[in-house]
Amino acid sequence: MKGILYGIGVGPGDPELLTYKAVRILQEVGCVAVPIAERDKESTARKTAGSYIKPGSQIIELDFPMTRDQDRLEEAWRQSCETIKNRLDQGQSVAFLTLGDAMLYSTYIYLNQHLGRAGYRVQTIPGITSFSAAAAAGGIPLALGDEKMAVLPGSAVADLNNGSLDHFDTVVIFKVARQYQNLINALDKAGRINSSVLVVNCGHPEERVITDLKSVVAEDLSYFSLIISRKEPVQ
Amino acid sequence: MKGILYGIGVGPGDPELLTYKAVRILQEVGCVAVPIAERDKESTARKTAGSYIKPGSQIIELDFPMTRDQDRLEEAWRQSCETIKNRLDQGQSVAFLTLGDAMLYSTYIYLNQHLGRAGYRVQTIPGITSFSAAAAAGGIPLALGDEKMAVLPGSAVADLNNGSLDHFDTVVIFKVARQYQNLINALDKAGRINSSVLVVNCGHPEERVITDLKSVVAEDLSYFSLIISRKEPVQ
Repeated sequence: MKGILYGIGVGPGDPELLTYKAVRILQEVGCVAVPIAERDKESTARKTAGSYIKPGSQIIELDFPMTRDQDRLEEAWRQSCETIKNRLDQGQSVAFLTLGDAMLYSTYIYLNQHLGRAGYRVQTIPGITSFSAAAAAGGIPLALGDEKMAVLPGSAVADLNNGSLDHFDTVVIFKVARQYQNLINALDKAGRINSSVLVVNCGHPEERVITDLKSVVAEDLSYFSLIISRKEPVQ
Repeated sequence: MKGILYGIGVGPGDPELLTYKAVRILQEVGCVAVPIAERDKESTARKTAGSYIKPGSQIIELDFPMTRDQDRLEEAWRQSCETIKNRLDQGQSVAFLTLGDAMLYSTYIYLNQHLGRAGYRVQTIPGITSFSAAAAAGGIPLALGDEKMAVLPGSAVADLNNGSLDHFDTVVIFKVARQYQNLINALDKAGRINSSVLVVNCGHPEERVITDLKSVVAEDLSYFSLIISRKEPVQ
């Protein structure tokens, strides 16, 4: 009998934000796969879930290079898939850790789709999204009543400028560092800048909630920074 | 010293999807407030978190009528706020339970904003959103790479029809029952119907994932039903 691939969302970085289901599975399986963006950096997902991993578990580090080199990416992907397939074929179940929610901006999604289509048993455990954690930290609602929310990466700054987000009560923007100044200008132009919060290092001990977005320079922003912008403050 | 209001997202309905942080707080506070939509129905949030509530805790049932009668709503709101304020003033901390995430379509948001402005200490614990749980159950990604996601209630069916959601890779639709046939027609027209899933009773033991959305009639849909619609399937 083949093993099961579990995709586990470990939440934004605070170990207390893992679910009981995630921890039960980490206690059951003997093999944990962690994505490593750079070989020398410890996986943030692993650090978050570390204290819950059963002692003696095998840890497989999977290389997911932060590159736009398509050939290198595909080769890394192929290797990761093969590594996991081998374990599953041997009857071993594998828990793949992913930061935040497993189905939102995670590398796990490709594994989920690829191995699912290849006939393997795959089970996904949802996690706390970083925007839920940021909204909680910042005391800013995501949506209430009949409101609408848009979630997008910083690269979609044009959508803020061309008015196509005007009918959204809340806009959540991930990966804000690279486009920070353009995003601030666009939020200002859209009249949203004074009802926006920036959450830096969301879910980590160094978390900061910033309401004066203009006071920040892009260089100070970590990868774990996001903006929640409301059209208008809640009455 | 006044007590603290904790808003706790208990996730979509599966008790295993509570976080360790939510449970720690339920073990610390002696007073748990639960929203009751109708006086005779047990609160779903309470049922979900029930086994984690410290024995001997006081349970305060707060009346949140499902009505469009503005006067009745406001009076219920005023009463709930007063009830909680009284506890906090007496130095007692209160954990307010809310289904899903605390900052997304929850009655807690109003309490959070109102009591926060009145100077009370308020702390929010994020929860698993029902769309994260539904995406996990349905094996359907919410967003990957540079994709964009929109989250809206079924009443926003016009947005699907007028093309203003065309640039969103994923659309999540809550509260689908009342507008079900209109939503199906709109998704069909937008070319999204074959890459959509309907998740009924998400997070509950009777959860069902349905890919043939046209086979369903609105009468069979519970309040806990949502649609995740992708522009196109993941490659």
